[in-house]
Amino acid sequence: MKNIKLTLQYDGTKYNGFQKQNQKGSTAVTIQGKIESVLSKMTEEEISIIGCGRTDSGVHAENYVANFFTNSEMNLEDMEIYLNKYLPEDIVIKELRYASDRFHARYNVKSKTYLYRINNARYNNVFNKRFATYVAEELDIEAMKRASKYLIGTHDFRSFTSLKIKEKKSTIRTINYIDIKKQNDLITLEINGNGFLLNMVRIITGTLIEVGRHKISPDDIKIILEAKDKERAGFRAEAKGLTLLNLEY
Amino acid sequence: MKNIKLTLQYDGTKYNGFQKQNQKGSTAVTIQGKIESVLSKMTEEEISIIGCGRTDSGVHAENYVANFFTNSEMNLEDMEIYLNKYLPEDIVIKELRYASDRFHARYNVKSKTYLYRINNARYNNVFNKRFATYVAEELDIEAMKRASKYLIGTHDFRSFTSLKIKEKKSTIRTINYIDIKKQNDLITLEINGNGFLLNMVRIITGTLIEVGRHKISPDDIKIILEAKDKERAGFRAEAKGLTLLNLEY
Repeated sequence: MKNIKLTLQYDGTKYNGFQKQNQKGSTAVTIQGKIESVLSKMTEEEISIIGCGRTDSGVHAENYVANFFTNSEMNLEDMEIYLNKYLPEDIVIKELRYASDRFHARYNVKSKTYLYRINNARYNNVFNKRFATYVAEELDIEAMKRASKYLIGTHDFRSFTSLKIKEKKSTIRTINYIDIKKQNDLITLEINGNGFLLNMVRIITGTLIEVGRHKISPDDIKIILEAKDKERAGFRAEAKGLTLLNLEY
Repeated sequence: MKNIKLTLQYDGTKYNGFQKQNQKGSTAVTIQGKIESVLSKMTEEEISIIGCGRTDSGVHAENYVANFFTNSEMNLEDMEIYLNKYLPEDIVIKELRYASDRFHARYNVKSKTYLYRINNARYNNVFNKRFATYVAEELDIEAMKRASKYLIGTHDFRSFTSLKIKEKKSTIRTINYIDIKKQNDLITLEINGNGFLLNMVRIITGTLIEVGRHKISPDDIKIILEAKDKERAGFRAEAKGLTLLNLEY
């Protein structure tokens, strides 16, 4: 039995997220479902892949990591060719590698990096609109940078998630950095942390957009964090602007 | 009567090029056709726009320049809002300006800059495939750069066009520079000249790709140029990789 680690890139526009949905009668089309189906045909085994985490419907990935176990004798190069031939054109395998038996794509993640793209111009750029959200009014980047500082470190991010409050899971996470840049009309927000709650990156981005519009002051971020109340945060930015960039193991 | 200069950006994927096709019964969908239709509705006049040149079916533009004459009293800001509201989402107006009566978007062009994108990796990147061609085998960029030097300057580019030979028009053009770069897996070829023949940029790119594959040697470019025979050049690279970047007036 071999444990194979795969790194994949996908345009999530047409998918209901990464993770297969097991509800009866679900017709959701997921990245996991597509890959398992091609892998199972290739190996003539019933393959289940372990993903590094969920991604929301419509979210993209530059380097998503998953692993699976197989008895197949096929070499990795041939596997890669087979997979990229039969996978839909919006999902590609970037790398396949043998991993130790103990490698687990989800449990072993040390940190994740997400990228959020905001097209900030008088017109909505036709070349990046598929992978960016559009904000017409000029955002105050310096205010957004100041606001983002309050989020760095270990905090209870209950104000920044769509998780239902009754769930007993911990909502404490650590954000290592948030890097906000503007190049021409494109603002990028790169955020790295040890883990993210449901919709956390999108709600942080929506809140920072409100700061950029001067609807929320940078110092209010501290108050929103301490309130532990999602009604206090800004809106949830669109899924299509979000890309899972990297995973550190 | 005012002469208005417009700068537009478009994703040409779904269009039969910029220029309206006047053959009877033509069902071609063109950028010009779309813009004239919205402009005519807006001004309640029958507007004809003068474009800076044709672009092939499927080719994109970052800054395409056109001009049109109107008696409309509407101010430019309102015009921009109207146009971007009613144009299809793959065409946007970046700028509207009053120009002198003598400004002509086609006759006054001094030079044009095109960008050709080649996605050169083991896998076909899902994020740029709409605007790049895909070449799996690693291209020799240094050989492509050496080859491109032979094309700089004033030459008869008959070998690098799909123009029919019987046409009596001059095939002499001047290329000012060709700048070839590789960043991660993306090769870009930026080419500036005083004018380009039908399919010239795409045939130059296809020929340079053949050089990158070591199917044509860099020094052969001189021989191909001198042959004035399109059978000697490389293939015509795909339309979707080509973008009209800038115009200098």
